Amino acid sequence: MRTRVAIIGAGPAGMLLAHLLAAEGIESVVVETRSEEYVASRIRAGILEHSTVDLLRAAGLGERLDREGHEHRGIYLQWPEERHHLDFVDLTGRSVFVYGQTEVQKDLVAARRAAGQSVHYEVADTALHDLETDHPSVTFTDSTGRPRRLVADVVVGCDGSFGPSRGAVPASLRRTSERVYPYSWLGILADVAPSTDELIYAWHDDGFAMHSMRSATVSRLYLQVPNDTDVADWSDDRIWDALATRLGHGQDGWQLTPGPVTEKSVLPMRSFVQTPMRHGRLFLAGDAAHIVPPTGAKGLNLAVADVGLLAPALVDLLGRGDARLADAYSDTALRRVWRCTHFSWWMTSMLHRSGDDFDAQLQLSQLRWVTSSEAGATGLAENYAGLPIGM
Amino acid sequence: MRTRVAIIGAGPAGMLLAHLLAAEGIESVVVETRSEEYVASRIRAGILEHSTVDLLRAAGLGERLDREGHEHRGIYLQWPEERHHLDFVDLTGRSVFVYGQTEVQKDLVAARRAAGQSVHYEVADTALHDLETDHPSVTFTDSTGRPRRLVADVVVGCDGSFGPSRGAVPASLRRTSERVYPYSWLGILADVAPSTDELIYAWHDDGFAMHSMRSATVSRLYLQVPNDTDVADWSDDRIWDALATRLGHGQDGWQLTPGPVTEKSVLPMRSFVQTPMRHGRLFLAGDAAHIVPPTGAKGLNLAVADVGLLAPALVDLLGRGDARLADAYSDTALRRVWRCTHFSWWMTSMLHRSGDDFDAQLQLSQLRWVTSSEAGATGLAENYAGLPIGM
Repeated sequence: MRTRVAIIGAGPAGMLLAHLLAAEGIESVVVETRSEEYVASRIRAGILEHSTVDLLRAAGLGERLDREGHEHRGIYLQWPEERHHLDFVDLTGRSVFVYGQTEVQKDLVAARRAAGQSVHYEVADTALHDLETDHPSVTFTDSTGRPRRLVADVVVGCDGSFGPSRGAVPASLRRTSERVYPYSWLGILADVAPSTDELIYAWHDDGFAMHSMRSATVSRLYLQVPNDTDVADWSDDRIWDALATRLGHGQDGWQLTPGPVTEKSVLPMRSFVQTPMRHGRLFLAGDAAHIVPPTGAKGLNLAVADVGLLAPALVDLLGRGDARLADAYSDTALRRVWRCTHFSWWMTSMLHRSGDDFDAQLQLSQLRWVTSSEAGATGLAENYAGLPIGM
Repeated sequence: MRTRVAIIGAGPAGMLLAHLLAAEGIESVVVETRSEEYVASRIRAGILEHSTVDLLRAAGLGERLDREGHEHRGIYLQWPEERHHLDFVDLTGRSVFVYGQTEVQKDLVAARRAAGQSVHYEVADTALHDLETDHPSVTFTDSTGRPRRLVADVVVGCDGSFGPSRGAVPASLRRTSERVYPYSWLGILADVAPSTDELIYAWHDDGFAMHSMRSATVSRLYLQVPNDTDVADWSDDRIWDALATRLGHGQDGWQLTPGPVTEKSVLPMRSFVQTPMRHGRLFLAGDAAHIVPPTGAKGLNLAVADVGLLAPALVDLLGRGDARLADAYSDTALRRVWRCTHFSWWMTSMLHRSGDDFDAQLQLSQLRWVTSSEAGATGLAENYAGLPIGM
């Protein structure tokens, strides 16, 4: 098989890249280890920052997002006895959208299917070859058990933490930075209308809690838990009790309404960056190059920003032989990656209980400052609502 | 002896409090363990924030400050290859002054001497008594060896980390938070004109460095060093070489001019807060209640802010029997204490090398953001130039 761009991974990064390239007449083939159903149903991020929404709309992917997504002006930040609203629109002119990664994925799959995109699901033994030549290739075993070779001009690794792309950069040339956090999130989905109009980020001495949502009838909630937590130890009642305490049920008359829990899982928290994001004819995008903890909702948005940079770079490279954007891709992308890595580390460190009383007092002082200083609030807002792509 | 206010400690906090109380007709006596000469020559902070300058001027202590102090519009923040100026006046409308703590102390001592202030230097065995009654007292041995008892309406502890006031709050009622940093500062005074017009805070992979100043002919410079550093291992040449490297000598033509080193010492770095700042008729102010690392120059300014709150509170309490401000003193003061404790921890953590490559990349991303985002720059500026007293 021959294609212009071999894309490894059919998640949002890979499918969006295929979509953006196709719009410029550049053909691609996507290979994916998992089944289409598995990829479609993975529960991940739910917040789209302003530039992500702009990019999806510009790519013709905004119709259902605009109809079914919920625009949020900001978030609530709270700690016991105090809840503050930060209005990102007032502070920065930019809003965010609540629209699940599963929905973005559905829109991408539908758009690519309509366009006849070639996607190989359920492949095995994926391997990358000849990345330092101008005819790199990807070999894999397809879903029928047949060995295949895909020769391309460029290979793009959109295959996350566990795919082979990250490791295809020679060990002597790659550099990794990592931080594992001493806590995890216990996340639930519940069939109940959210008890809040916008997301609540709550500091509590028992640990962080968050009230997010997927739709008008589906709530998403999180609790900070120790890293070794067994989800079996957390009954639905125990979860709702802890959420009520940490989110301040009863405070100023606010009520948390519990409901049937439909999904329950423990999410570890990690920051990870691998540099550079390009090696020869291999480009990395999204989780293949970087992981952020979920606080601040940067993971999906960062993947979209990578692809938003990479697509025009590949169009220039492959369509016009102009390598300038491709050569700048890694450095340009990493500026945003480190900004978001810092921001998600900062949000995480400010909101999760860990350490001693000194840490707790620093967190509370910082929360008071962020919610009372216009500069403090704007700093959070401009990072959360997101910088323009290319910044 | 009988007085209205017994003040323990003749440093800037104690002497300023005596001065502010005297202006409202309230008599005080100051006791101090050290000699007048020792207190006068202690080399400490050199940056006065905006509200400190306002308070000193309003108290009639601004004449020499305005004549000999140097108003700075901001600071330089740098890392290898990049130096940025943050203009606090443009960002917040507030400036800072370079005017050493030794100079503030001289002005205070001169003013109090002119007014006939009673100060007992070189006392020993200072002890506090009956703090929960309305006739607290301080006993001490005076410089002639004679035991003395000073009975007062109120006792104020301005006696820093090592004085007896902090520990006079019963252990069961006090709470302390502390952080010891894994690095120290090697500080020098040098008889050479500063090589910069405003302070330089420099991040460097070898460790933090800072170029400060005391006057047009005296420079003050600092190097981050390990905690167990012996000053004898640092020759003048070694110090100037390290400063040149870390401060970027030769970068964009900038030159660091060395000169004779007149003082050299290692400063440990610590954050410490004891709460509450009041117990019965004892009030704590300045270092007696809290210590900050020197980064961000908050120590002296925080002591002045405490005294700026406490003086009117004691005037109301002792002059008119109105206890409201005195009752609010601890909570009000601690809001600022925690803001400055957080800020100095934040500045310290952003600028000192410690940890791994992930930490370094977070620091650099934060520095880039602070110097490129107006919100980021304003956040630093409003904390550095200082909030109004009472905030």
